[in-house]
Amino acid sequence: MANAEAAMVSNKQIIFPDYVSGFPKESDFNITTSTIDLKLPEGSTSVLVKNLYLSCDPYMRICMGKPDPLSSSLVPPYTTGVPIVGLGVSKVIDSGHPDYKKGDLLWGLVGWEEYSVITLTLHSHFKIHHTDVPLSYYTGLLGMPGMTAYAGFYEICSPKKGETVFVSAASGAVGQLVGQFAKLMGCYVVGSAGSKEKTKFGFDDAFNYKEEKDISAALRRCFPEGIDIYFENVGGKMLDAVLINMKLHGRVAVCGMISQYNLENPEGVHNLPTILYKRIQIQGFGVCDFYHKYSKFLDFVLPYIREGKITYVEDIAEGLESGPPALLGLFEGKNVGKQLFVVARE
Amino acid sequence: MANAEAAMVSNKQIIFPDYVSGFPKESDFNITTSTIDLKLPEGSTSVLVKNLYLSCDPYMRICMGKPDPLSSSLVPPYTTGVPIVGLGVSKVIDSGHPDYKKGDLLWGLVGWEEYSVITLTLHSHFKIHHTDVPLSYYTGLLGMPGMTAYAGFYEICSPKKGETVFVSAASGAVGQLVGQFAKLMGCYVVGSAGSKEKTKFGFDDAFNYKEEKDISAALRRCFPEGIDIYFENVGGKMLDAVLINMKLHGRVAVCGMISQYNLENPEGVHNLPTILYKRIQIQGFGVCDFYHKYSKFLDFVLPYIREGKITYVEDIAEGLESGPPALLGLFEGKNVGKQLFVVARE
Repeated sequence: MANAEAAMVSNKQIIFPDYVSGFPKESDFNITTSTIDLKLPEGSTSVLVKNLYLSCDPYMRICMGKPDPLSSSLVPPYTTGVPIVGLGVSKVIDSGHPDYKKGDLLWGLVGWEEYSVITLTLHSHFKIHHTDVPLSYYTGLLGMPGMTAYAGFYEICSPKKGETVFVSAASGAVGQLVGQFAKLMGCYVVGSAGSKEKTKFGFDDAFNYKEEKDISAALRRCFPEGIDIYFENVGGKMLDAVLINMKLHGRVAVCGMISQYNLENPEGVHNLPTILYKRIQIQGFGVCDFYHKYSKFLDFVLPYIREGKITYVEDIAEGLESGPPALLGLFEGKNVGKQLFVVARE
Repeated sequence: MANAEAAMVSNKQIIFPDYVSGFPKESDFNITTSTIDLKLPEGSTSVLVKNLYLSCDPYMRICMGKPDPLSSSLVPPYTTGVPIVGLGVSKVIDSGHPDYKKGDLLWGLVGWEEYSVITLTLHSHFKIHHTDVPLSYYTGLLGMPGMTAYAGFYEICSPKKGETVFVSAASGAVGQLVGQFAKLMGCYVVGSAGSKEKTKFGFDDAFNYKEEKDISAALRRCFPEGIDIYFENVGGKMLDAVLINMKLHGRVAVCGMISQYNLENPEGVHNLPTILYKRIQIQGFGVCDFYHKYSKFLDFVLPYIREGKITYVEDIAEGLESGPPALLGLFEGKNVGKQLFVVARE
């Protein structure tokens, strides 16, 4: 049915043209402009939003690969010819859904575009109720990465006070939080990252993996007694080096393996007999299995933020066009802190 | 203090001369004869036993390697120049320990020799109270391998009725029991072994891994919907093939990795990103952490044995000298069922 009050505006979009193998390049993204009606048709149950902050997350590389039944059990592959889908913070412009009205703020899956029409499904979007904290935090600390760090550390790692914790990609969206959660619990925390600047996150120790000839030796130096908990964001050689430095009954929470996403064939990891010798637990997890605990997470983390006991470093690019290079930068380790970009501030 | 009633007899022994790298050979064992006094000295708290059945277990290869802080967190390295230490069923000849008297039967760690003097420590030895079942079962079904299968399957795999279970080394001391436990629980069970004969263990399906060009394809054929539980005895290429055939939230209990023990450097396993995609749990375990449940295990398993609902295949060699070739045969997959050898029948 035609809408009497049609209000057409232009809508800049970043289109995903085709599946990628190897390292993605800027030419793997097409910037186009279409038009969109800012009024939803009568009877729609969707929500039309203006996108404010859009998020660059390593998992998006998995969605860019050829559809594969293995990886799509964690995240679905992208559809070609339409905008990249990612997480973002958005403002409601028009709503056919009873839970949302014009002016509401939400975070969840939207297109890489100025305006998106979204269909709500279970845990696809969350209304933003607390705005005394930076809105952009809902792409990181208060969004998917924060929930990931919370579920991964508290539910998967079974941490205890005094244990030793190693976090790879320690300056990333998730890693910097895991380290802080571990410090709050009274753990000894070491992080690794790809530059000196990125290792300054207030942990007990840190190393720049690019400057270490022998990662295993670096780990031995930082953990002479071994590692109780490894929060895995990297995979490959890093995992191999960590395994032989684990303590008896150590735990590995596998949150991501960013070093493997651009490889045609994943690297071989050799030290798996250590799983037996040290009776180690390795647990892969996805935040999708934990979103029912999101409000519990907010109750936990908001007071820490307000008291300044948890901080969060963001790497914010400006403008929709900055999305592709910002995303690509993740795979070169360019970002310092959680990578996002601003499409509009209100 | 000299013993007035000294009763010296000869004691044939299998000595471990030196640490082994690569595949062990018969020359890695020396057979000698010493003498032993069958009366313990006054004031001894040890127990002197006559060894009846001695056990060949894959973990013994780990003990034969050069001392290594990694593997020795599971099993201690052997001492060179003294008899091989293994599990066995023995009869008490003399005892300085209040819990044992002459004629008692026990199982636990003894030397590969006709007579051993043993020192009791927590869970090092268990008195045998039930003799209506074959005594040799205390090297297998009712001993360490049985307890391993029980703890590994029920405590580590979190099995549920109707789940799909894959067991490698399915004809071995542990594997044949895991498969039977899984069948009793109402799981769909497939085993792999190294010959057609060895795959006849009453599971739902089985394959001979030596005849399959593509292990992953064999697994897909047996598990078109994927694997919920993998009971890992093999490691290396088998683990790699299993990982990409696991179901969402699958579990891998790492009991052993027999294919890796004779390698200088363990093989690379490539499909670890699947741990993330399928949110898989991998848990290494050692029976040493579960011996406090041994009497609970006996209460569970003895009725099944008496009712014929659990059977056990043994591969029994004759004589102390048959120990080394029997142990070496494990690493070539020669044994059909639990490998042991008889030193004496009473």
